[in-house]
Amino acid sequence: MIDFQFDYHIDVLKSWLRFPSVSADSAHVADTHDCATFTANHLAKIGLDRVTVHQTPGFPVVTAEWLGAPGKPTVLIYGHYDVQPPDPIDLWQSGPFDPVIRDGQLVARGVSDDKGQIYCHIAAIETLLKRDGRLPINVKLLIEGEEEIGSPNLVPFIVAHQTDLGADVALVSDTPMIAPDRPSLCTSLRGLVYLELTVQVLSGDLHSGQHGGTVPNAIHTLMAILSKMKDESGRILIPGFYDNVAEIPGIVRDGISKLPFDESGYCKKMGMQAPVGEPGFHPYERRWYRPTFDVNGIWGGYIGEGSKTVIPAKAHCKLSMRLVANQDPHQVTQLFRDYLNSVTPTGVSVEVIEHSGGYPAMVSPDHPAVPAALGGLFDAFGVDPVFQGEGGTVPIVAEFKRVLGIDTLLMGLNLEDDRIHAPNEQMSLANIRRGILASIGFMQRYGQVQ
Amino acid sequence: MIDFQFDYHIDVLKSWLRFPSVSADSAHVADTHDCATFTANHLAKIGLDRVTVHQTPGFPVVTAEWLGAPGKPTVLIYGHYDVQPPDPIDLWQSGPFDPVIRDGQLVARGVSDDKGQIYCHIAAIETLLKRDGRLPINVKLLIEGEEEIGSPNLVPFIVAHQTDLGADVALVSDTPMIAPDRPSLCTSLRGLVYLELTVQVLSGDLHSGQHGGTVPNAIHTLMAILSKMKDESGRILIPGFYDNVAEIPGIVRDGISKLPFDESGYCKKMGMQAPVGEPGFHPYERRWYRPTFDVNGIWGGYIGEGSKTVIPAKAHCKLSMRLVANQDPHQVTQLFRDYLNSVTPTGVSVEVIEHSGGYPAMVSPDHPAVPAALGGLFDAFGVDPVFQGEGGTVPIVAEFKRVLGIDTLLMGLNLEDDRIHAPNEQMSLANIRRGILASIGFMQRYGQVQ
Repeated sequence: MIDFQFDYHIDVLKSWLRFPSVSADSAHVADTHDCATFTANHLAKIGLDRVTVHQTPGFPVVTAEWLGAPGKPTVLIYGHYDVQPPDPIDLWQSGPFDPVIRDGQLVARGVSDDKGQIYCHIAAIETLLKRDGRLPINVKLLIEGEEEIGSPNLVPFIVAHQTDLGADVALVSDTPMIAPDRPSLCTSLRGLVYLELTVQVLSGDLHSGQHGGTVPNAIHTLMAILSKMKDESGRILIPGFYDNVAEIPGIVRDGISKLPFDESGYCKKMGMQAPVGEPGFHPYERRWYRPTFDVNGIWGGYIGEGSKTVIPAKAHCKLSMRLVANQDPHQVTQLFRDYLNSVTPTGVSVEVIEHSGGYPAMVSPDHPAVPAALGGLFDAFGVDPVFQGEGGTVPIVAEFKRVLGIDTLLMGLNLEDDRIHAPNEQMSLANIRRGILASIGFMQRYGQVQ
Repeated sequence: MIDFQFDYHIDVLKSWLRFPSVSADSAHVADTHDCATFTANHLAKIGLDRVTVHQTPGFPVVTAEWLGAPGKPTVLIYGHYDVQPPDPIDLWQSGPFDPVIRDGQLVARGVSDDKGQIYCHIAAIETLLKRDGRLPINVKLLIEGEEEIGSPNLVPFIVAHQTDLGADVALVSDTPMIAPDRPSLCTSLRGLVYLELTVQVLSGDLHSGQHGGTVPNAIHTLMAILSKMKDESGRILIPGFYDNVAEIPGIVRDGISKLPFDESGYCKKMGMQAPVGEPGFHPYERRWYRPTFDVNGIWGGYIGEGSKTVIPAKAHCKLSMRLVANQDPHQVTQLFRDYLNSVTPTGVSVEVIEHSGGYPAMVSPDHPAVPAALGGLFDAFGVDPVFQGEGGTVPIVAEFKRVLGIDTLLMGLNLEDDRIHAPNEQMSLANIRRGILASIGFMQRYGQVQ
């Protein structure tokens, strides 16, 4: 196993963590800019080329590269140097920006999300450059400072620097591992369509005594429309909805079928009697590789205290669909609109507002970077890694695909107990060490791909 | 036709209307008490016996009687001397408590609801007593001062004075006529059950990306439960719900079938394409004689601006059922609870809160007072009156039945354009005159019933 100076790396990481680079807080504008400068200086110091601090309308994007391995693959490593606000401060056992080691954990704001994770790759690069004077592959680093505020300037940046950012695959370490001591490679993310509906059936609210029995009720109409969207098993009834849904690759299904899943523990934690969902799919498949339709909010009529005998003219809901590869949110939105029109009774007006959305993303297990990533994780953890998906949406991954045409490996290293976005955020020294090893192993293996 | 001093009566009514007897406004406590005193004084002056101002924890109840017709029926005439607040004051063309005659209308707060209507009966009594020195029937008057604030002290009063209030039938003029120049006798009122439901399917809200596909959604669960309550035609699916529903008397159905009903005008006014409801029933039957099930309010999940990808743990609704004779709100509530339990999926917790309710009421067309009331209306209007129902609930009517064991005739004289509860409330001089004539005609005819 390759040797590296672990204590030195922890010291560098601590220095990075001391910057209160809170992108959401205007009191920390200078700190966040200083953090970008520190990042760039460090990348230059360890031997990366073309280190640049790109100013944006918000916080800078830091890029660097090492392209001394012609003929070898190129990896675009993405991360972010900004962090969540530390509030509530008084729940921290030590200062959020005074990193300390406690019980084998490095504790500081941003250690797990995302400085500690991206630092594993930086440390891997430094280690290999120091030892060999070169890397087994080409790397490009893209480290932004606005991830925690929605990356408003990142897509324009990627579009503007499309050529410079070209690579064979992207590598992101900003997601969770499936379980402690069980490394996983996330090969899919779900996309999203989020809509708001308003149905109107009357010109105004009516008294339920005077008119009840002869007039429609907007809440009933909305419920009748929504009841046509999904059957009791969870299958979505919008015609064409499943047409582009990718099959779950056999290797992924096999891996998932071998994953430990504590059904009764999951149910107990969620407070439900039994898991629900589409028959024929493992719970992890339902969460990661299958689309969903959920009403996220509903309101209409009288919702104050006590009673009011109103027949509401209007009713509203917010609804979302989680999409999977290869669904297109714009196409799904259109399918929804068409179906909505077909199931809306005559005389009912329906207004649709489109909120945020995002493309799903999937990395084929056949991508040549995948075995290298799995091998790197095996090197570090000593157990076979598993494939996993992510039920949520990481919009940048779809943008890498859309703008740069590349897939993304999600090599997550944080754990559910790491208190992301919460007081006493932590990352274990063990996982930092494994993260460095996994990154080294990945680069070495990927460099051997013909 | 009997002669009476119409101008004198308008003057008395105006004097009554000058009291700002606004029961909801603490600034008018003294005015409301003064109005009770005026009422009692006038009833004594016209020759009624045992006139009493009964103090209550709120505003007084005024009672009076004339029982000089032994062997003849006794009618309990109910009304209220309190009025709605006049706000918004600046929309009144003249002072709300300065009654004026404008375009054949007497305009003042409370003229139609309810001083003008109850005064018709008072004037009829005065007219007959003046002319004959006696009445053709026995009468008891019950005039309360808290109708506009929900009659909090009336039921205890009726219970306490049960024997004194005994009668063959009650007579209430506090409801609308079906149309101008078309007198109607309201022979039914719907009752009400109003409930609030909360369903819970998870211990807390979840992220729709992380867990969507494996967990239940409280909004969907609530909608699924509600979808089992009513079919698309409006028929309620709660087992046993219709068991006690009284058939609509043939004479009532016949009358309704002859009523003018402007379907397109109704739809246009309500802003809907076509009337809805149970097949096989006239729209008036659906509104007056058939029960309903309506969700009056619904809420759950994220209902703020923009989007939040939440799977809600809880969802809520308010729902009500309009009941008809002979349904019992307590029994219907129990039927609902039983059915709710049977359709609630395992593992879902449902909480039910019971809000206000009320019994339905129906007067049989065979009641001997009914032909007398119809005859009185014919005397006054010169056209055949029709039967109508009221879709709403007038709780006192059910209490007369429950406590005193008597049916109620609802001889409404106000019109849709009379601006009840609104600025420039009015009642036409023509309808005041007809109201007096109808009351006289009713008493004379009812006195001839063997």
